[in-house]
Amino acid sequence: MTRPLPASPFRTAEQKQTDRAAKRDALLLAAARMFNERGFHATSLDDVAASLGVTKPTIYHYLGNKERVLIECMRIGLVRLQEAASAANLTQGTGVEKLRAFLVRYAQVNMSEFGQCVIRTGDELLSAQGLDELRSLKRPIDRAMRAFIAEGMADGSIAAGDVKMLAFTLAGALNWPARWYKASGALSPEAIAEQLTDILARGFLPRPS
Amino acid sequence: MTRPLPASPFRTAEQKQTDRAAKRDALLLAAARMFNERGFHATSLDDVAASLGVTKPTIYHYLGNKERVLIECMRIGLVRLQEAASAANLTQGTGVEKLRAFLVRYAQVNMSEFGQCVIRTGDELLSAQGLDELRSLKRPIDRAMRAFIAEGMADGSIAAGDVKMLAFTLAGALNWPARWYKASGALSPEAIAEQLTDILARGFLPRPS
Repeated sequence: MTRPLPASPFRTAEQKQTDRAAKRDALLLAAARMFNERGFHATSLDDVAASLGVTKPTIYHYLGNKERVLIECMRIGLVRLQEAASAANLTQGTGVEKLRAFLVRYAQVNMSEFGQCVIRTGDELLSAQGLDELRSLKRPIDRAMRAFIAEGMADGSIAAGDVKMLAFTLAGALNWPARWYKASGALSPEAIAEQLTDILARGFLPRPS
Repeated sequence: MTRPLPASPFRTAEQKQTDRAAKRDALLLAAARMFNERGFHATSLDDVAASLGVTKPTIYHYLGNKERVLIECMRIGLVRLQEAASAANLTQGTGVEKLRAFLVRYAQVNMSEFGQCVIRTGDELLSAQGLDELRSLKRPIDRAMRAFIAEGMADGSIAAGDVKMLAFTLAGALNWPARWYKASGALSPEAIAEQLTDILARGFLPRPS
């Protein structure tokens, strides 16, 4: 009778990859929180590292320098906004249904740590290269917003008007919660997102009943 | 026959005060532009001073240190928003008329250099004392926005709803142009402000005709 082998203390290649991803994610979340609380310039990678019990070279190893860390945080937020657009696009419905689905998710992402990072970071904080990289991530999001609006105007589910100006209005109203949302508040990001979207849909003028 | 005296080369007390105010204003405008373009941390008072052909001690003399300069810039923007609220309040009209008048002016101020400074500066950039000072300037603006909304809901000129959430929606949509407005664009701040306000008033759902 052979005895069963004890579990190997060596990690498999797959485990190593999972561990690496988990460490990277933890560093990014810690960094995003600190950028949002203190601002980019006042955040030191030493403090980010210390909040996870490691040192700055660990961050360099997993992520790179401070701008790279910021851009990675913003990239996650922007990819989630892109996913929101893709998911809304799969909705079988009118233009307004796609737009609504997108807006509700868009606002929620903006209240998450990585979404807040996207909104709170002014262009002036980034290098020309970083700015280019982020602009190419933002472009499909703007395009999707305008495409849903144009589709709704074409199928009559959205009132005729200026597509670009409506997109600016909606984006502004739903970006701003990234500045005022606090996790300690009474309403969930989802509830806030639904209410803001509803107000934007109906406007503030009374409707003839 | 007495000859007329030549104009005095000495400035009167009144002229001195006017000159002083003009110098202070010029320094603040130069600073606001630089804060908006480069961000607070990347702006040096040396560069602000140099852009007017003076040196940093001149700025200290007229305004104080860099945070004081930023706060003064923001104060001008906030005072203009307060003035917008007061002017709207003098309108003889329904709640919605006051609200509209306020919103159009509110958006325009946010596209001006000093208004942009207010919106682009995250709370995290300010000292606790600076933050307190700005919060007390912001409070009457928020209060006015909510008062106009409540008045309109009471007189039926604004659709019934959550006053606070509507105020957040409107403020967000009309703050955001501070980030994207460029003086080189095709539309004037006034035209943009009118269009955004109209979209917010009517919403994007089609209205039964």
